[in-house]
Amino acid sequence: MADYVKVAVDAMGGDNAPAEIVKGAVEAIQAEKKIKVFLVGKEEQVKAELAKYTYPQEQVEVVNATEVIAMAEPPVAAIRSKKDSSIVKGLYMVREGKCDAFVSAGSTGAVLAGGQVIVGRSKGVERPPLAPLIPTEKGASLLIDCGANVDARPSQLVQFAKMGSIYMENVMGIKKPRVGIVNIGAEEEKGNALVKETFPLLKECSDINFIGSIEARDIPAGAADVVVCEAFVGNVVLKLYEGVGATLISKVKSGMMVNLRSKIGALLVKPALKQTLKAFDLEQYGGAPLLGLKGLVVKTHGSSKAVEIKNTILQCLTFKEQDINGKIQKVISGAAE
Amino acid sequence: MADYVKVAVDAMGGDNAPAEIVKGAVEAIQAEKKIKVFLVGKEEQVKAELAKYTYPQEQVEVVNATEVIAMAEPPVAAIRSKKDSSIVKGLYMVREGKCDAFVSAGSTGAVLAGGQVIVGRSKGVERPPLAPLIPTEKGASLLIDCGANVDARPSQLVQFAKMGSIYMENVMGIKKPRVGIVNIGAEEEKGNALVKETFPLLKECSDINFIGSIEARDIPAGAADVVVCEAFVGNVVLKLYEGVGATLISKVKSGMMVNLRSKIGALLVKPALKQTLKAFDLEQYGGAPLLGLKGLVVKTHGSSKAVEIKNTILQCLTFKEQDINGKIQKVISGAAE
Repeated sequence: MADYVKVAVDAMGGDNAPAEIVKGAVEAIQAEKKIKVFLVGKEEQVKAELAKYTYPQEQVEVVNATEVIAMAEPPVAAIRSKKDSSIVKGLYMVREGKCDAFVSAGSTGAVLAGGQVIVGRSKGVERPPLAPLIPTEKGASLLIDCGANVDARPSQLVQFAKMGSIYMENVMGIKKPRVGIVNIGAEEEKGNALVKETFPLLKECSDINFIGSIEARDIPAGAADVVVCEAFVGNVVLKLYEGVGATLISKVKSGMMVNLRSKIGALLVKPALKQTLKAFDLEQYGGAPLLGLKGLVVKTHGSSKAVEIKNTILQCLTFKEQDINGKIQKVISGAAE
Repeated sequence: MADYVKVAVDAMGGDNAPAEIVKGAVEAIQAEKKIKVFLVGKEEQVKAELAKYTYPQEQVEVVNATEVIAMAEPPVAAIRSKKDSSIVKGLYMVREGKCDAFVSAGSTGAVLAGGQVIVGRSKGVERPPLAPLIPTEKGASLLIDCGANVDARPSQLVQFAKMGSIYMENVMGIKKPRVGIVNIGAEEEKGNALVKETFPLLKECSDINFIGSIEARDIPAGAADVVVCEAFVGNVVLKLYEGVGATLISKVKSGMMVNLRSKIGALLVKPALKQTLKAFDLEQYGGAPLLGLKGLVVKTHGSSKAVEIKNTILQCLTFKEQDINGKIQKVISGAAE
């Protein structure tokens, strides 16, 4: 079937591989007829997991890969030496056009390095950013860049703003997404050298809806749909989101266990609270795309369970149907001319 | 009385001036006989506030200042032009040795710029960092630097580490405070150019307890007592702390109001929860010192109420009694030789 959107899935990546990965892949094809998944990993293990389910057989293929890249391995060396790993093999399937996308919950460094080296950048893209969705009071914002390449140049941040806008408009359905640059104050003259240089360039872009600087305080409030920053800052934002969230929620829990009165209250409040806090869970939005490559590469959390894998695979369909890569290509190459 | 620790207080700074500022100053001298406060501001207004309280008269002096620097004014220009403002006059009192410390809830930019220009840096200090205490699961950590001077050099970060260690050991009473540098991974080879250059310099310091890189995720868990970073990153950390905290707490509150069952639970849980969350309130720790100046300058939150002003004034006593400036001078000059 030439019509399938073909997704290579790293069956060996993440804390819950292969069981949860295979389960998520099966759930994705059960939900969507247009997708075919290629489970890349140790054939025997993958097939043993697959045997647990009933599913449309024609929508799954197992691709044997005898090696696994561990979380702690130096990424570039691992990509070079482990040619028969699930990450390298999956990325080659995208490079060779056998698949449209590659999804992995494995080593972030290896996926990022491999995405650039094996799949390769789109023409004109200076640096492919890793762009996770983060929860806000208004829904979700795209944090771009959180990747491994730090110390970006202004022209790269401008490309992030454009790619992020295309993603939020076409994948998330937000009209004229508001683009903000992370800064230490709202005034144009504030900031470090990088932000000061980037600000006027963003102001000149007619193809994005630039709203100016946003302070970190305003990110969780949803002050911008596309939150542009250099990767070091993006990494700090993403990880602090997790850290403050985890600490506060544990404080709330222990606060409820202080005495008998509060314990009874906790029982009553728990179901409603759980529901509300779920909307602020970083993992609900699935994987983070590595934008600006010749194919789609998506990194999901190392702790991904089946539901995140399933949602990420389904996102690949939207990404392909909306021709995000074509649109990015058009905007970036147009700008480069 | 030559024995007083003399604290100039900006009576006009912050959202709740002069009422809460004067109230906090009165509470401080009621609590501590060794302190004398100099309330700098519009004499009539300050005296009208003072008239509301009974307090040891000899521990208060009102210093008339006819001008006020507003929050939105460009800091350097304001410091230059408003010579009769409460901030400029208060800082001059420290410069001239009439006071040991200056406390302000007013314009952060003006306090930082004025601190450096008017009070001046200690010998050998390259850049004075603004260092607030932030709440963690284990108590509080010092986040150094959150000031207005971004794009620091490695040698400056090393000085931050040393000054921060002295503060945490002598003011907060933490033996051998653990010093960590904010990074995007725990490994030594990770980071941006600044962190990579700074890391080996910190490792060589025999006078601090350097524990290596910490990821932003681990800051709220209390992974380091002294959290070293460049000011742009520090600002992002501080403001995201506030932002994520505010959003999550509002989510918790609304989650509890979803249905009747949860509303009853909320009533039972509220007192215990309030108590626990108070320990995670950024404002409980009082002001952030601007370290490495010839005198002490402390910036409190713009929203400061009397209790924060009182605590900050009391901190000035510890700072003076522990001779923090002398200790900083010794370590920094020693290192510079």
